[in-house]
Amino acid sequence: MSVGPGKGEPFRFPLTVYYEDTDAAGVVYYANYLKFMERARTEWLASLGFGLAEFEAAHGVIFVVHRMEIEYRLPARLGDRLEATLELSELGRARMVALQQVRRGASLMALARVTLACVERAHWRPARIPAVLHGRLENPS
Amino acid sequence: MSVGPGKGEPFRFPLTVYYEDTDAAGVVYYANYLKFMERARTEWLASLGFGLAEFEAAHGVIFVVHRMEIEYRLPARLGDRLEATLELSELGRARMVALQQVRRGASLMALARVTLACVERAHWRPARIPAVLHGRLENPS
Amino acid sequence: MSVGPGKGEPFRFPLTVYYEDTDAAGVVYYANYLKFMERARTEWLASLGFGLAEFEAAHGVIFVVHRMEIEYRLPARLGDRLEATLELSELGRARMVALQQVRRGASLMALARVTLACVERAHWRPARIPAVLHGRLENPS
Amino acid sequence: MSVGPGKGEPFRFPLTVYYEDTDAAGVVYYANYLKFMERARTEWLASLGFGLAEFEAAHGVIFVVHRMEIEYRLPARLGDRLEATLELSELGRARMVALQQVRRGASLMALARVTLACVERAHWRPARIPAVLHGRLENPS
Repeated sequence: MSVGPGKGEPFRFPLTVYYEDTDAAGVVYYANYLKFMERARTEWLASLGFGLAEFEAAHGVIFVVHRMEIEYRLPARLGDRLEATLELSELGRARMVALQQVRRGASLMALARVTLACVERAHWRPARIPAVLHGRLENPS
Repeated sequence: MSVGPGKGEPFRFPLTVYYEDTDAAGVVYYANYLKFMERARTEWLASLGFGLAEFEAAHGVIFVVHRMEIEYRLPARLGDRLEATLELSELGRARMVALQQVRRGASLMALARVTLACVERAHWRPARIPAVLHGRLENPS
Repeated sequence: MSVGPGKGEPFRFPLTVYYEDTDAAGVVYYANYLKFMERARTEWLASLGFGLAEFEAAHGVIFVVHRMEIEYRLPARLGDRLEATLELSELGRARMVALQQVRRGASLMALARVTLACVERAHWRPARIPAVLHGRLENPS
Repeated sequence: MSVGPGKGEPFRFPLTVYYEDTDAAGVVYYANYLKFMERARTEWLASLGFGLAEFEAAHGVIFVVHRMEIEYRLPARLGDRLEATLELSELGRARMVALQQVRRGASLMALARVTLACVERAHWRPARIPAVLHGRLENPS
C-alpha cells in the first residue's frame, strides 16, 4: 500500500544550523544531515500522535534505518534556517520508505530516500509495524 | 559591570531530546549538554538582534568558550522536552560569564558557569567585545 | 579509468566504539557510521602520503561527499573493536567513488558506496583532482 | 585514599582531529574535547584490564560524569595529532576525580578536572565502586 506524493503536503520541520552542525570547511558536516532528517521523522510521528520513546517502550519495537540513499546538493552554513521535509512513499508490513529533503527556502540542500525497518527491541529481529501506527499511516488525514 | 540575576528573567530556549543526543546508557550523552547550552547562547544573541554568523563576519571576532564548570544533576532521556536557560552574570571588555541551566519542567538536569572570550577570528587573540553588542548587553531591556 | 577490487587489498582502519558513538537503542547511532567512514578516507589518503588539511590548503580544493548509498546490516555496540575499509572503485577527473565497509571481525555491520567530488574551496565549484593525487590513485602500489 | 601525580606517569591516548571534530571556526568544537577525554578514560580502564561494556554489564553499574571543570587554552585544528592524558587524583568509595589534558606535542590545548560517580545502572543511584576495580585503582602498578 503506497502513501505518497500527491496525497498531500509533505511534513515540514524547521531547523537552525549551530556551530555543532558545521565543520572546518565552513559548512554543515555531511553526517549531520542524517540527524536533521531523523529529527523530522521523530516529529512527524509525534504529529501523528506517536511519541517515539513511549511508542517503542509500549510495543517493544524500534525503527531502524536499514538503507539510505542521500544526495548532497548545496552546502548549508552557520545560522541558516532550514526545513526538513518528509513524505512517506512506501508502507509495508515491517518497513516503510520515506522521502526526505533538507531545504533552505526554495533551495534544495540535500535529499534522501530512507528505508526504515521495524525490529523487536530485545532481539533486533524484523517485526510488524504495530497496527495502531500502520492504520494511521494508511490514512494520515 | 555586572548584569545578573534579579535584573530580569533568564532567557529560555526549548529543546527536544532525539536519538542523536542519547547514548547506550539510555540518557543524554554528557558532551551534548554543551551543544544544548550553545544553542541557547546563539538564540539569546539572536533575540537581542545579533545573528551570530553575520555578527562574527561583520566584526572579525568570534566568541569562544574559555572555561566551563558544569554539574550534572539528573539524566535527560529520549523524547524529553527540555529548556536551556541563560543569564549573563558578568560582562567585561573582552569576556563575559553566562550562567546556564538545562531544565525539564521544574527539574534541574544540569547547570553551568560558562566564561566566553571574544577573540579576533584571524589571529585567535583577545579582542574587545564590539561596542554595539557591549552596549546592548549592559542595557538588555 | 577504474581502479577497483581485484587490484589489491582494501585499506583498513581500526575503530573502537565509545559512548559518544552509541544511542539509547544501545547501538551505534546511524549517522556515526558516516564519521567512521570518513576517518577511514582521511587515513587512506594519509597512507598514500596526502595529509588532508595540508593537501586542501595547498591546492585550494576540498573533497565533499556528493552522494552516498549506505546499508546497515548489523548493529555495532559499545566497546566493539571495528574496522573500516575502503576500496577505490572509480576515478574520474573531478570525482571518485569509494566502496566502504564497517566490519567487526568477519561480520559486516554496514557498507556504502560514496561518491566524492573535488571542489574549489573558495567557490564550492567542481575542480579537477590535483594531478599529484590523481596520479598516485591511478598507480597506488 | 588518594592516587595522584607523582605516583607515576599519566596515561596517554593518541587522537587525530577529523572533520567531524571541527566546526566552522576552523577549530575543534568545544564539546568534542569531552569526547576525547572520555575515550581516554575508557582506554585507561581497558589498560587496567577493565573493558567498560563488560564491566558495567557484569556489575550493574555505570560511571557518570557528575561534575567537570574544563579550561580551553589553544585551539586544535583539522589533522592535528593529539594526545589525551589522564591522572587519577582522588579515589573515594563511590566516586573518583581524574585530571585530564589534551595536548599537541608540548602544547596544552585543554585541561579538565572530571568528577566521576559510580551509579546503579537500573536506578541511577550512587553505588560503591566494585572492589575489583577499586583495589586495582589503589595499586595501579
